[in-house]
Amino acid sequence: MSGPIRLALVGMGKIARDQHLPAIASNPDIVLAATVSRHGEGEAGVPFFHSIEELAASGVEIDAVALCTPPQPRRAIAHFAIQQGWHVFLEKPPGATLAEVEALRDAADAKGVSLFASWHSRYAAGVEPARAWLATRDIRAVTITWREDVRVWHPGQDWIFEAGGFGVFDPGINALSIATRVLPRPFFVETAELDVPANRAAPIAARIAFRDAAGAPVTMDLDFRQEGPQSWDIVVETDAGTLTLAKGGGELSIAGGGEHAGDTDLHGEYPGLYRRFADIVRAGSSDVDITPLRLVADSFLTARINAIEPFDW
Amino acid sequence: MSGPIRLALVGMGKIARDQHLPAIASNPDIVLAATVSRHGEGEAGVPFFHSIEELAASGVEIDAVALCTPPQPRRAIAHFAIQQGWHVFLEKPPGATLAEVEALRDAADAKGVSLFASWHSRYAAGVEPARAWLATRDIRAVTITWREDVRVWHPGQDWIFEAGGFGVFDPGINALSIATRVLPRPFFVETAELDVPANRAAPIAARIAFRDAAGAPVTMDLDFRQEGPQSWDIVVETDAGTLTLAKGGGELSIAGGGEHAGDTDLHGEYPGLYRRFADIVRAGSSDVDITPLRLVADSFLTARINAIEPFDW
Repeated sequence: MSGPIRLALVGMGKIARDQHLPAIASNPDIVLAATVSRHGEGEAGVPFFHSIEELAASGVEIDAVALCTPPQPRRAIAHFAIQQGWHVFLEKPPGATLAEVEALRDAADAKGVSLFASWHSRYAAGVEPARAWLATRDIRAVTITWREDVRVWHPGQDWIFEAGGFGVFDPGINALSIATRVLPRPFFVETAELDVPANRAAPIAARIAFRDAAGAPVTMDLDFRQEGPQSWDIVVETDAGTLTLAKGGGELSIAGGGEHAGDTDLHGEYPGLYRRFADIVRAGSSDVDITPLRLVADSFLTARINAIEPFDW
Repeated sequence: MSGPIRLALVGMGKIARDQHLPAIASNPDIVLAATVSRHGEGEAGVPFFHSIEELAASGVEIDAVALCTPPQPRRAIAHFAIQQGWHVFLEKPPGATLAEVEALRDAADAKGVSLFASWHSRYAAGVEPARAWLATRDIRAVTITWREDVRVWHPGQDWIFEAGGFGVFDPGINALSIATRVLPRPFFVETAELDVPANRAAPIAARIAFRDAAGAPVTMDLDFRQEGPQSWDIVVETDAGTLTLAKGGGELSIAGGGEHAGDTDLHGEYPGLYRRFADIVRAGSSDVDITPLRLVADSFLTARINAIEPFDW
């Protein structure tokens, strides 16, 4: 491929408009060649289709697709795209199930296209410095607190509370994508408690007790009902003091040494994702780390479920 | 290792006595060197310990352990055994979570010992012939029916209904271990419905709709409340007629061509497992296929949960 990557954006919801379109526009290696949405609208001056099959039949030339649909229907769309010979960028979570992501990886390898399971929170400014600092520390305890207001961040998005929609693990998987990147040892679910509203199928809150391979406790508190100040914090107690990643990985402070504010303009999360995607497409490789999704599946597998009061928007 | 493999059996419950002890006794490459049980009793003439730490401190010489404890505490025991340099045979399911099994595999590789995630139903007499026949067929639909009486097969085993105990997926994972072995294409969860008794944490019945990579439906009906005749059947409709695996894989009939009864005396499931274990220990390799466990985790991840009437023994 010599020119820029001709990319179709599929699923024109909130995340596509808030994050993907600006990131694509800022990247000289990628050009928006089409948009696809069942119900939504396209972009002025760019070919628009109601399905990926319509796109494929149109003759518009495409090298890659970025899929921003909810996870439930994503496998079929991704599989179709791979069969067209298109590279595929998957919004998080990369699928509704682990088995389908493994199969997509196999299909992409067989077809010789790149598959990218993106984890945008790993591109927050504090993540790589935190990883580097923690690599040589003795980890004693980790506390993850991810509490946000679903009415603000996912207004009216019923799919998130449907079966397979992940519920509060939709943001919670961002926390896990950071924790699995910055902590030096793997960790495992010991117990999980999920609160599921009586009129919904997915949890609105969850408390998970993990333990790392050396025995240190990792606890995670997820809640979608947080009004007022929001919390996206990971606190790591070590032999050399406490590391705090706040604001979803954007703000790092180490052992009382002051804050390192993240630069979210030039080096924001989605611009970082699209640079990475362009790199793996040029290199002919894939980047599919299922670790965060596996921990979510393990949480559901071992969970005690509490039926709680109904939730309405 | 020149002599037979000196094996300690850990978790002296029903499966250890019904299946492991006779299979070990019939295998000249393996000798029972110790038993370990928190509450249970040992075997006459064989050293007995209340914990694996006690075994390690005893000076009894051990090459390998077979773990028959419930899945919830298994990781810590397996990890300890690997650190002693012992080979590890895991009863199914290989762990309470996927992440811990991956970590055990890494730990076993690092320590140079063999890890065996056993799936006894794959050693039923009809499984390999079914796999061979299906390899060249066009699969049109698959129906898995696994209905048994928990009061008969797991009498009083409360752990099975605790969080992480798998409930009806404890037998259901046997069906999946066969289906993932005999079907030529991978398959994925589309929808899952789990019935959880109000006084329990794990499902007593489940209905899963899978789809295979070429679009064929695979349905699975699990129920722990089956009185009278029990069902452990997999029916595969193909372009060349119907294949039926009945009696948990022990009985195969193909396209109306009569039954091939399994020989469960000389070539039973657990003798097959121990021959395989001895082989991988001699070869210095491991055998860890997490596919069945991954499909169970995917089922929980995407499930709609129904609270149903309480269950008591």
